[in-house]
Amino acid sequence: MKVLRWHGARDLRVSEVPAAVNRDNEVLVQVAYCGICGSDLHEYQDGPHAIPCGSVHPVSGEQAPLTLGHEFCGQVVAVGDHVRGVQVGDRVAIEPEYRCQECRYCLAGDYNLCESMGFIGLMGNGGMAEQVAVPDYMLNPLPDSVSYRQAAVLEPAAVAEHALNQSSLQPGGRCLVIGLGPIGLLLIMLARLRGIQEICAVDVSPERLEKARQLGATSVLDGRQDDLHALLQQLSAGGFDTVFEAAGSQATFTTALQAAKKGGEVVLVGLMGEISLDAFDLVNREIRLQTSVGYRDVYPALINHIAEGRFDPAQIVTKTVDLDNALSGGFDALLASKDQIKVLINPNPSLTEQEYPLHV
Amino acid sequence: MKVLRWHGARDLRVSEVPAAVNRDNEVLVQVAYCGICGSDLHEYQDGPHAIPCGSVHPVSGEQAPLTLGHEFCGQVVAVGDHVRGVQVGDRVAIEPEYRCQECRYCLAGDYNLCESMGFIGLMGNGGMAEQVAVPDYMLNPLPDSVSYRQAAVLEPAAVAEHALNQSSLQPGGRCLVIGLGPIGLLLIMLARLRGIQEICAVDVSPERLEKARQLGATSVLDGRQDDLHALLQQLSAGGFDTVFEAAGSQATFTTALQAAKKGGEVVLVGLMGEISLDAFDLVNREIRLQTSVGYRDVYPALINHIAEGRFDPAQIVTKTVDLDNALSGGFDALLASKDQIKVLINPNPSLTEQEYPLHV
Repeated sequence: MKVLRWHGARDLRVSEVPAAVNRDNEVLVQVAYCGICGSDLHEYQDGPHAIPCGSVHPVSGEQAPLTLGHEFCGQVVAVGDHVRGVQVGDRVAIEPEYRCQECRYCLAGDYNLCESMGFIGLMGNGGMAEQVAVPDYMLNPLPDSVSYRQAAVLEPAAVAEHALNQSSLQPGGRCLVIGLGPIGLLLIMLARLRGIQEICAVDVSPERLEKARQLGATSVLDGRQDDLHALLQQLSAGGFDTVFEAAGSQATFTTALQAAKKGGEVVLVGLMGEISLDAFDLVNREIRLQTSVGYRDVYPALINHIAEGRFDPAQIVTKTVDLDNALSGGFDALLASKDQIKVLINPNPSLTEQEYPLHV
Repeated sequence: MKVLRWHGARDLRVSEVPAAVNRDNEVLVQVAYCGICGSDLHEYQDGPHAIPCGSVHPVSGEQAPLTLGHEFCGQVVAVGDHVRGVQVGDRVAIEPEYRCQECRYCLAGDYNLCESMGFIGLMGNGGMAEQVAVPDYMLNPLPDSVSYRQAAVLEPAAVAEHALNQSSLQPGGRCLVIGLGPIGLLLIMLARLRGIQEICAVDVSPERLEKARQLGATSVLDGRQDDLHALLQQLSAGGFDTVFEAAGSQATFTTALQAAKKGGEVVLVGLMGEISLDAFDLVNREIRLQTSVGYRDVYPALINHIAEGRFDPAQIVTKTVDLDNALSGGFDALLASKDQIKVLINPNPSLTEQEYPLHV
C-alpha cells in the first residue's frame, strides 16, 4: 500500500510498503482524509521533535521511519477479534491519543495526560496512508450527517474544545484569541458556539483576520500595530476574561498576559520553549496561567454539533491533495503561504468523491 | 501620640505626632497588637516598594513619611457619624485592604483586585501607633473567645486562606508548601483544617521545618538536598496536586513546577520579579499556574475557626515588643535570625496585659 513516511528532517517519502495488518484489539481503517498539522510541518522542517528515533514508543512499539498523520477518518475494512461494537463498513473518526490504560492518569480517565503520552501518526504509523491499523479506543462512529471532510478536522477542533474546557470562560464572557492558525480559528468558532459575547482575534496576516471575522470574531486587530496593548485595553474595557495564546512566541505570550483583566486567565495552547514573565505583575493582578494539552472526552459532543448543523469545521479546509501530491501541494504549500489553512490528504479518492468535488 | 514611622530605607523613627482623628466613615482604634510583616521588612531594608512617595495614594490621600503596620487589631475608641453597627469599646480586627468602592472589581465584590489596590499601613498611616483611624469597611468584630494576640495574626492567615481558596485542593488531596515564613506555616495549619491528607513542607531552616511538623506538616524536607526532586516525586507518588510557592525565588519556583503532578497546579503566593519557565513542559504536563493576592471575604470564617478552637494562629508568634523597642527587638531581630517568626508590636500594653504575659 502507499504511504507518506518520515525518514528524517526534509525527507518525506511516498513509498509502497506491505499492507497494514490489524491486531486483535485494532481495526483496519481505509483512510478518507488526513489533515496536515503544524506538528507534521515541524517534523518535516527540522524534526525529529516527537517522532521516536532509535527506540520504540512504549505503546505503539514503533519508531522512525514512520507514516505521519494523526488527523484522520475513514471506513472500517477489518475488525480484530477482541473489538466489540464496530462493524466493517462503519465510518469512523480517529481520536489519535495513545493510552497505556495502566497509569494513574489513564485509570482516572485523564488519558490526555497518559504517562506514555503519544499520538498515532507521530509516535506510531498514522493516517497518511491508504490503510492504517488503529486501536479500538480511538474510534468514534460518524453519523451519515457528518462528512469525512468535516470529520478530518475533528482533531484540531478537539484541541480547541479542550482548551475552552480548561478555561473558565462563561457565556456572555469576553475572550481574545492570539494566533489564527487552525486552532485559533476553531477556538473562535467553538467560543461563539458557547455563547461567548465578545471574541477578539489578533494575527499578523490580513487574510487570517478576514477569515476570523467570517467565522465569528466580533473584532479583529493586526498584531503589528504599535498601540496594540492600548487598543486591546479599550476593546475589552480594561482586560479580557480569557486570552488564548495560540501563536507560541515570547512576544505574543507577553501580549496575552497584558491583555487579561485582573483575576483573569491566559490559556497556553501553542507550544513554546523557555519563556519569561513578570511574576510580580502576574501575582498583583491575580492572573491564572492555564495550559491545555490534547483533549479528552470531547469527540462525541463535537460530532453531535456537526451532525446537528451548529458547527462546520470544514470551513477552514482550503485544499485537498492525493498522496502523490501531498508533499508539494500540502507540506510545501502550507510553508509557502498563509493562504493555505488546513490541507487534507485524500489517499483513497474513491471513498470521498461523492462528498465534495476536489478543489485544487 | 507615639508612632513608628517610615521616613526612608533604613530610616524608621519612633515619633510623637498629633493624635489621629477619624472622619465620618471611620472609627478610631486603640491598637492592641500590630504584627511585623515581610513587606514591612522590605520597606525598611530597601524601600520604598509600595509606600507612596511624592504623591498621595488615591484612596488614603496619604504619602511618606508614613506609619507602618497593616496586621493589627484593637479597641474602638471613637466612631464616625456615618458608621453603623460599631460601638465604642468593641474589639475589632482590621482587614487592611483599601477599597475605592467604585471600580469594576470593587463593584463585583473582588475588592482585593481594586484598581486603586493598597493597604493601610503601607499606602496610608497604619497600626504601629497608639491609635489609628480606620475606614468602617475594614472592621471585623471579635468575639470574646478570640484574643488580640490571635487577631493580630489574622491578616497573614487571610493571605494563606485566600491562596487555598484560589487553589483547587480538595479534602484528601496532597500538597507541598515551599517556604516556611509566616504564610507558609499558616498554609500548613489551614490546609490541615481543610482535611488535606498529605502536607509536605520544604525550607532551608531546620527550625522552621521542626515548626512545620508541629503545626501539621506530614513530611518535611531540607530544600538544600541534592536529590530534592527525586525525594519529592517519591513522597508524592509522582507529583503533588497543588504546590504553594511561598519562598519567592527562581530556584524554588522551578522546584515547584517540577513537583506538581500532570494536570496539577502551582499557586504563587510569594512575590517575585522576572522569572523564566519551560513552557513546553508546562503545557505538556498541563500544569496550571495560579496566583493569589491579598484576600477577600475570609475574615469571618477565620475568626469563627479561632473562636471555636479549631485554629490558633498565635502559635507562630515568637515575641512581642513595645513601640520603643520595635526597631531593635522587632525589625532587626527578624532580619538577624530565623528563630523569630512573627513579632507583634504592642503599642498599648495596658490593653493586652491580661491576655498573655509578654515574653521577650
